[in-house]
Amino acid sequence: MTRHYNFCAGPAALPVAVLERAREELLDYQGRGLSVMEMSHRSDEFIAIAERAEADFRQLLNVPDNYKVLFLQGGASMQFAMLPMNLLGQGGSANFIQTGIWGKKALSEAKRLGFDCHVSASSEPNGHTAVPARDSIKLSGDAGYLHYTSNETIGGLEFDYTPDTQRADGCHVPLVCDMSSNILSGPIDVSEFGVIYAGAQKNIGPAGLTLAVVRDDLLGQAQANIPSLFDYKMLAEAGSMVNTPPTYAWYLAGLVFQWLKDDVGGLAAMDAINQRKADKLYAAIDASDFYSNPIAKVNRSRMNVPFVLADAALDKTFLQQADTAGLLNLKGHRSVGGMRASLYNAVPESAVDALTAFMADFEQTRG
Amino acid sequence: MTRHYNFCAGPAALPVAVLERAREELLDYQGRGLSVMEMSHRSDEFIAIAERAEADFRQLLNVPDNYKVLFLQGGASMQFAMLPMNLLGQGGSANFIQTGIWGKKALSEAKRLGFDCHVSASSEPNGHTAVPARDSIKLSGDAGYLHYTSNETIGGLEFDYTPDTQRADGCHVPLVCDMSSNILSGPIDVSEFGVIYAGAQKNIGPAGLTLAVVRDDLLGQAQANIPSLFDYKMLAEAGSMVNTPPTYAWYLAGLVFQWLKDDVGGLAAMDAINQRKADKLYAAIDASDFYSNPIAKVNRSRMNVPFVLADAALDKTFLQQADTAGLLNLKGHRSVGGMRASLYNAVPESAVDALTAFMADFEQTRG
Repeated sequence: MTRHYNFCAGPAALPVAVLERAREELLDYQGRGLSVMEMSHRSDEFIAIAERAEADFRQLLNVPDNYKVLFLQGGASMQFAMLPMNLLGQGGSANFIQTGIWGKKALSEAKRLGFDCHVSASSEPNGHTAVPARDSIKLSGDAGYLHYTSNETIGGLEFDYTPDTQRADGCHVPLVCDMSSNILSGPIDVSEFGVIYAGAQKNIGPAGLTLAVVRDDLLGQAQANIPSLFDYKMLAEAGSMVNTPPTYAWYLAGLVFQWLKDDVGGLAAMDAINQRKADKLYAAIDASDFYSNPIAKVNRSRMNVPFVLADAALDKTFLQQADTAGLLNLKGHRSVGGMRASLYNAVPESAVDALTAFMADFEQTRG
Repeated sequence: MTRHYNFCAGPAALPVAVLERAREELLDYQGRGLSVMEMSHRSDEFIAIAERAEADFRQLLNVPDNYKVLFLQGGASMQFAMLPMNLLGQGGSANFIQTGIWGKKALSEAKRLGFDCHVSASSEPNGHTAVPARDSIKLSGDAGYLHYTSNETIGGLEFDYTPDTQRADGCHVPLVCDMSSNILSGPIDVSEFGVIYAGAQKNIGPAGLTLAVVRDDLLGQAQANIPSLFDYKMLAEAGSMVNTPPTYAWYLAGLVFQWLKDDVGGLAAMDAINQRKADKLYAAIDASDFYSNPIAKVNRSRMNVPFVLADAALDKTFLQQADTAGLLNLKGHRSVGGMRASLYNAVPESAVDALTAFMADFEQTRG
């Protein structure tokens, strides 16, 4: 068996320990004679798996009791539609901080569905190389919530603060955050948010699962007659089982949470590891005249590190040689070009060491 | 390792050969050094997996070229909402044949979303023990499509014919079928349908994947401004990758399709095996005064066989002893009670032999 270093932006690397445990249990879950995939979602065995996953997630992020944790389908993109439908049932507009492609998609979807949308702040003037200043965020008078993307996966831009959500009239509206690509990368204060959501395929588990953490007072604010599976309140009341949930992805997410707790030692420990990994790679980039990253230092993503070569004609050679060296999926997003190394939780520090060594060697030999 | 016989109604048994192949490839897909779960959905490796799965599915069901095959999320229940939103953009009503709980849910969801709904035929008068007579189906004048459930998983009621969809004005409307629990159980003529859809977790793969087979002329008929991920046309144009699809479930479905083609020998062979399995179990029930099934013989489901004991006080003992004997998940749905043995494709004939032997023994000893 071969295992290479996988820098994919998502679906992304999973912890080897999780994959090994899944392999061990694949045909027979703990002597029950069947796979987790083959269990009724209403069976005692699966309910125990599901509840443990939720409990571990809550413990990791210290989720307060007045929040529900929903295990959903459809990816973060489905939340782009579900959010305004759930939060603006009483009217109001959706406010957005725009820092890149994903935030733009969230806004487009709300607009498509006919909601009033307002850009409260944008980093477009600086080419999305630094997040807007904290005090530049201006909510509209009718703001129902403020949405932002804590880490832009494609641009590699990460917030270094939690935005304030006060309108001119003094009212604080709920803060909604797409944390798809940096959830669980370190501790956060959940109580600052109305809704946190994340597609699983970066730091949680396999694609096909989406987590939403929703404050209780935001349940039951939905527009009338939205699809049943869109209604946070119905989903919460059914324990995310209005219909059959993605059971195997839920189980794998639970294994990832166990790994974070038991093998890594929790989110503070994960945070330190992630900081070291990112520091090493950015240091290698900054020390070189050949590699560069355009993002303001304070907003450089710890999860997604885009960089370009001084000579773009060498991109193809770089990628081919990296692949041969067992450094996979370093190609930048098609909208950006260049390279991108994603350093999610499951990417070990040794992967960064191997990458920086390869980069130094490539810089010297130019392929 | 223990493997028991699993009669679960869904998520249901998967072929052992598929699980073994998945286990073998779990940490390293064909020497590439990573799991299928860890691959970008836009990588060459995953695109090859996805395209092969679709090609095999098309070959198995002989899907004509003027149909798209969509790999979606959200389960059949999400289709209950997506169908009227996609098919009634130009107006018209949704027509339903009601033969049980799932068909009722499909109608409720369309109603909830504000669509005009009409019951074209119902088996409610006979307690859902026989499907409505073919010539009793009366479409409304404004019918936009006719929806039915080819196999009711809970009641154990299966259509023995394909409904006609002619309105009084002579116009044929599209036929829409929820085949969640009997798709791939035998050959069908796809050209008779406008849309076929099925949650994966019975005969296709793990929960979290839904297949929809949509005739080309039905794309682009959607209501304006529905969620992007609801629009069949957008999904079809993006090859089911408007956003990240449930990649691992897609891969597993592909392995199931390969198993059906190569190990089973195609759907005609599968059909014969399923017929034998069902015949054996119904024969055992009919030969006994202790077990009974209420469904008209011609409509007895080959996939889901509900039955009751003459003495319901023995239900618990029956289930406990069955479980101990390695016959899992025989409890009937909570809305029906009694027992239910689901005999999906992956349930081997030996499972039915073991079950009928256990039933005969239990009848004799009464536990």
